[in-house]
Amino acid sequence: MEISDLKANHPEHWKKASAIRALAMDAVAAANSGHSGMPMGMADIATVLFEKHLKFDAAAPGWPDRDRFIVSNGHGSMLLYALLYLTGSPEITLDEIKNFRQMGAKTAGHPENTEAVGIEVTTGPLGQGISNSVGFAIAEEVLRARYGKKVVDHHTYVFAGDGCLMEGISQEAIGLAGRNKLGKLIVFFDDNSITIDGKVELADITDQPARFKASGWHVQEIDGHDPEAIDAAIEAAKKSSKPSMIACKTHIALGSSAQDTAKGHGALTDAQLIADTKAAYGWDFGPFEIPADVKSAWEAIGSRGQSEHAAWKDRFAELSDGKQAQFNRELSGETPKKLASAIRKFKKEMSEEKPKLATRAASQKVLEVLNPILPETIGGSADLTGSNNTNTPDLGLFGPDNRKGRYIHYGIREHGMAAAMNGMALHGGVKPYGGTFFCFTDYARPAMRLSALSRIGVTYVMTHDSIGLGEDGPTHQPVEHLAMLRATPNMLVLRPADIVETAEAWEIAMNRHDGPTTLVLTRQGLPTVRVEHKTKNLTEQGAYVLAEAEGKRQVILMATGSEVSVALAARDALQAEGIGTRVVSMPSWELFSRQDESYRKRVLPAGPVRVAIEAGVRLGWDKWLLGERGREAKAGFVGMSSFGASAPAEELFEKFGITAENTVATVKGLL
Amino acid sequence: MEISDLKANHPEHWKKASAIRALAMDAVAAANSGHSGMPMGMADIATVLFEKHLKFDAAAPGWPDRDRFIVSNGHGSMLLYALLYLTGSPEITLDEIKNFRQMGAKTAGHPENTEAVGIEVTTGPLGQGISNSVGFAIAEEVLRARYGKKVVDHHTYVFAGDGCLMEGISQEAIGLAGRNKLGKLIVFFDDNSITIDGKVELADITDQPARFKASGWHVQEIDGHDPEAIDAAIEAAKKSSKPSMIACKTHIALGSSAQDTAKGHGALTDAQLIADTKAAYGWDFGPFEIPADVKSAWEAIGSRGQSEHAAWKDRFAELSDGKQAQFNRELSGETPKKLASAIRKFKKEMSEEKPKLATRAASQKVLEVLNPILPETIGGSADLTGSNNTNTPDLGLFGPDNRKGRYIHYGIREHGMAAAMNGMALHGGVKPYGGTFFCFTDYARPAMRLSALSRIGVTYVMTHDSIGLGEDGPTHQPVEHLAMLRATPNMLVLRPADIVETAEAWEIAMNRHDGPTTLVLTRQGLPTVRVEHKTKNLTEQGAYVLAEAEGKRQVILMATGSEVSVALAARDALQAEGIGTRVVSMPSWELFSRQDESYRKRVLPAGPVRVAIEAGVRLGWDKWLLGERGREAKAGFVGMSSFGASAPAEELFEKFGITAENTVATVKGLL
Repeated sequence: MEISDLKANHPEHWKKASAIRALAMDAVAAANSGHSGMPMGMADIATVLFEKHLKFDAAAPGWPDRDRFIVSNGHGSMLLYALLYLTGSPEITLDEIKNFRQMGAKTAGHPENTEAVGIEVTTGPLGQGISNSVGFAIAEEVLRARYGKKVVDHHTYVFAGDGCLMEGISQEAIGLAGRNKLGKLIVFFDDNSITIDGKVELADITDQPARFKASGWHVQEIDGHDPEAIDAAIEAAKKSSKPSMIACKTHIALGSSAQDTAKGHGALTDAQLIADTKAAYGWDFGPFEIPADVKSAWEAIGSRGQSEHAAWKDRFAELSDGKQAQFNRELSGETPKKLASAIRKFKKEMSEEKPKLATRAASQKVLEVLNPILPETIGGSADLTGSNNTNTPDLGLFGPDNRKGRYIHYGIREHGMAAAMNGMALHGGVKPYGGTFFCFTDYARPAMRLSALSRIGVTYVMTHDSIGLGEDGPTHQPVEHLAMLRATPNMLVLRPADIVETAEAWEIAMNRHDGPTTLVLTRQGLPTVRVEHKTKNLTEQGAYVLAEAEGKRQVILMATGSEVSVALAARDALQAEGIGTRVVSMPSWELFSRQDESYRKRVLPAGPVRVAIEAGVRLGWDKWLLGERGREAKAGFVGMSSFGASAPAEELFEKFGITAENTVATVKGLL
Repeated sequence: MEISDLKANHPEHWKKASAIRALAMDAVAAANSGHSGMPMGMADIATVLFEKHLKFDAAAPGWPDRDRFIVSNGHGSMLLYALLYLTGSPEITLDEIKNFRQMGAKTAGHPENTEAVGIEVTTGPLGQGISNSVGFAIAEEVLRARYGKKVVDHHTYVFAGDGCLMEGISQEAIGLAGRNKLGKLIVFFDDNSITIDGKVELADITDQPARFKASGWHVQEIDGHDPEAIDAAIEAAKKSSKPSMIACKTHIALGSSAQDTAKGHGALTDAQLIADTKAAYGWDFGPFEIPADVKSAWEAIGSRGQSEHAAWKDRFAELSDGKQAQFNRELSGETPKKLASAIRKFKKEMSEEKPKLATRAASQKVLEVLNPILPETIGGSADLTGSNNTNTPDLGLFGPDNRKGRYIHYGIREHGMAAAMNGMALHGGVKPYGGTFFCFTDYARPAMRLSALSRIGVTYVMTHDSIGLGEDGPTHQPVEHLAMLRATPNMLVLRPADIVETAEAWEIAMNRHDGPTTLVLTRQGLPTVRVEHKTKNLTEQGAYVLAEAEGKRQVILMATGSEVSVALAARDALQAEGIGTRVVSMPSWELFSRQDESYRKRVLPAGPVRVAIEAGVRLGWDKWLLGERGREAKAGFVGMSSFGASAPAEELFEKFGITAENTVATVKGLL
């Protein structure tokens, strides 16, 4: 549809859409950076969606039953900010728009969920938003099944571009959504045929509608500038029981001299170009100026949902007090009080029973305690359920026929799983955890980083955490992955040594709201090292004295996870020779770093030889070996300095010297 | 097709295929681990492919014009090992088969290209092999265009399972192959409807043939046990100018009681099950026993290509001496002698000219020197060509109409790009490099790890390497990525400080054969710091004294990349106050670690205050700050401890304190 037709046939629509386009141009020009083309191309879709369909109340952006609006092509952030401002967001004010991409502004270069309530999710790394949206839609299904559609009944709308659809993660998301018939998920594909390098056909000739159809989606193709076609397509999409993709043919940077070009994708900052484009729009206003009638038309859209919101409140009030409290608790992310006592009871039993178990199996035993107490958990695995030990009997399988199911077969899709978990947690009301082999942290990595950056409380259950994986070989044996996660800000890494620490780790993870937790668990069996029951969650301190030196303290052995029992065996050998040796279990660097100096000093006093034992690379360990009062001449490391190998696990520990014997030898070389 | 029909109608085929199945069962049983089901399911396809189509000479597995055979579903490694042994591989002997998955065996749990010449590529992490294969096919096209089809004319055959196709990377590979019409790429999809968690439909309902068709592939669907159908499908696939996918309906763990079940996917070790299965096959032989007639039939297949190989040698000999030498040099990975002198000349000019340039722009200038000298380079970018500065005018675009083109628009597919680069390099004859934003190392990560593990000489051009990226914000600003790469064994990380170091870095990368190099480059402009020309490649030492202290040496500032000029500015300020300050430029930790102790000691002597400056996290830096004769009380770090923010770059460096002023203050706090 041409601009002239739009103006003539849809004058009110056109003005509202022009306001988005003008704000995007003005803000990008003021920032001298950003992306003008997407907002200019998708403004018509956004206007129809917001005016006629999106269920929201601009004054109450946190309304739990609002429709979710996700901008997966996050470089078009000005589209979102313009919509928030125009409809009356309390947080995205005109000043914020004017400060687009400036220090301290809520209007960051790419949308950041931590900046304002109306920003549902942090996007920008392509393909993430569309994959998060699958999680949003799953959470909605689960909560609707649990609380009824009078309380939960909303759609997830997604804007996505060619970049999102070229990223592999999108295939994982499309497959997961198609299989699970997420009918309330509606994706608008900004089919503008342009990427940064030029025409899409330089890199791709994929028939996207056919691709979505192949995975069980409802698909439509429309003119993305025709308000009637957009409205009709949304109506049809809502009626389908399948997830919907609406391929919208659009013109990037519509109406400018850069229309339909790669230049139009980026920052249009030329004053004359902007003036010409506004003239073509018939938009006769200064920078950041929105005429009162247009602003009030948008504000009417923003308040359209108020009565629906009020009616929802009435319906919510009809729930029993217990249901209301549960709903509010689950939404808050707080765990029920009985969690702490259940964990304490379990720890006590285990300290007495002293099972020899892999921590992945220990984790499953903890889940058997947790899941019945926490109806909000949603478990899953990337096709390694039996290996990750992530399922428990009470969960039931989530699927088209069982929306109350709490376990998801994510398929061989680590990346899609992590992104869906992010989406679920951001939706709220559910607490997702998901598993794969620790080595395949690599596949999930971009979404895991966003868990940390977006401060999302998800739990990664990463098993088979070292050469202890054995015969599958180096492709499946992590050696650098602990370092990778520890290097990532706001990622909490917990590598428990036995079933007691595993229970403590899960308790920490379930209580964390402001970032992700990764549980790093073994394939191989481990003895219980916490044989003396402590009510206190010792893992919360990050590191603690597990076994004190007898006699003069000459040595401190530090270890995590499966290497704690190696340290204990080395201590036995050293003590037998009269060498006083302390063992420090160190399940979490991050938590230990947060302890005050006096505690850290008590755990790691100056003086003794220090040896760290961990079946990973040394990188980072020098903080504890040489820092914290350590000394280079008295510090050693027992671990990996190369990739692993394919052989039985015990032989690998021998080959790479991660043994009590080698630890003893290392200590003696330093005494 | 039923086993009874196969036996009756194709008795010779059946025996050969049974040999694969029996060896797979025997080896998995002996190892008590591994995956029996895939080899048992795909043996018929493999037998027909090897017997009738695959161009190879078992005695000369490195023949450059052989067809490539890639097992993307690498857990089925015993299929590959059985084929290599049966056809007469010099390296994969019966003893190796018997030692499957044992310490030191070439028959690792998953195929490792470093173990034997016939193993083309390391697979196991799913989706990688099919994505590598796109690179193999690109390399073949490029070399065929360059040397003619008398010398280069072969196919790339791939086995892939549901796991490979569910991983997102497969979509990137499929898209790239379809766009580039890689007609000599033929993928067999092991359509057995089973994954580890159970039936595929638990997680996916994708119509895979329709999905491949949507991206421009030639698609067939056949019974994967019918030798005639397999043969006919390969014939048809060879005739197509598009890449081909043959969906082969197979039975996992064919003929066993675990057939068509998730159990059949794993290790079948039960003696009775194996005996029953062999009985069903009519295979009346002991463990690892292959009757002479079957072995010799397989060896005939292995030598079928000898005459073709001999004819190829004759044709190769007809090339001019220069062409032969170039072909052999390119295949060896060696660079031409004139590279060194060209780099020296460039360095000298730059030290005189002293441009202020971003290292990404400097990199492009170096490429303008390199690419004309190295016809084997294949450049590309994941849709950030203008930002990564990876293209030079002489390359030309690779595509269906220009097989001589040396630049690839990979699309928004960092992961697929990295995997394709791995494939190209493993094919041999080309030297790939590819770019994206450094932060999106995350997306490419699983393939980058395999570059390192598989010892592949590819070059990653990672630009926009810190908060210096500016307004795009924290989603695009790496802070932990240097640590991630440094933690990865065999990854060479080079973060040059200016155009001279950038030239040195490229020289190192081009001469590296046994692992990947990552060039970490800035968005923002940097002054030339190497203003005094040195013939020697100083970057090769990893770290070196860039500016010596005047007067008593009280301080050593260490920095990499863009922070080297910050260190120099801090030195100026400190020297002005009479505080003797040395600046060490440290472009590569890995290379510095390899220097002998006496050199390291000269660069980092004991005594002075040490401060490291890097716009990334501290993790790992303690090795240089506290180790190497350093002391905790005299060490400081100027860098990041959180994610970045969205704002202009200069303001971000101020906000996060990565400035000369803060460096000076840090030093003074330690003096």
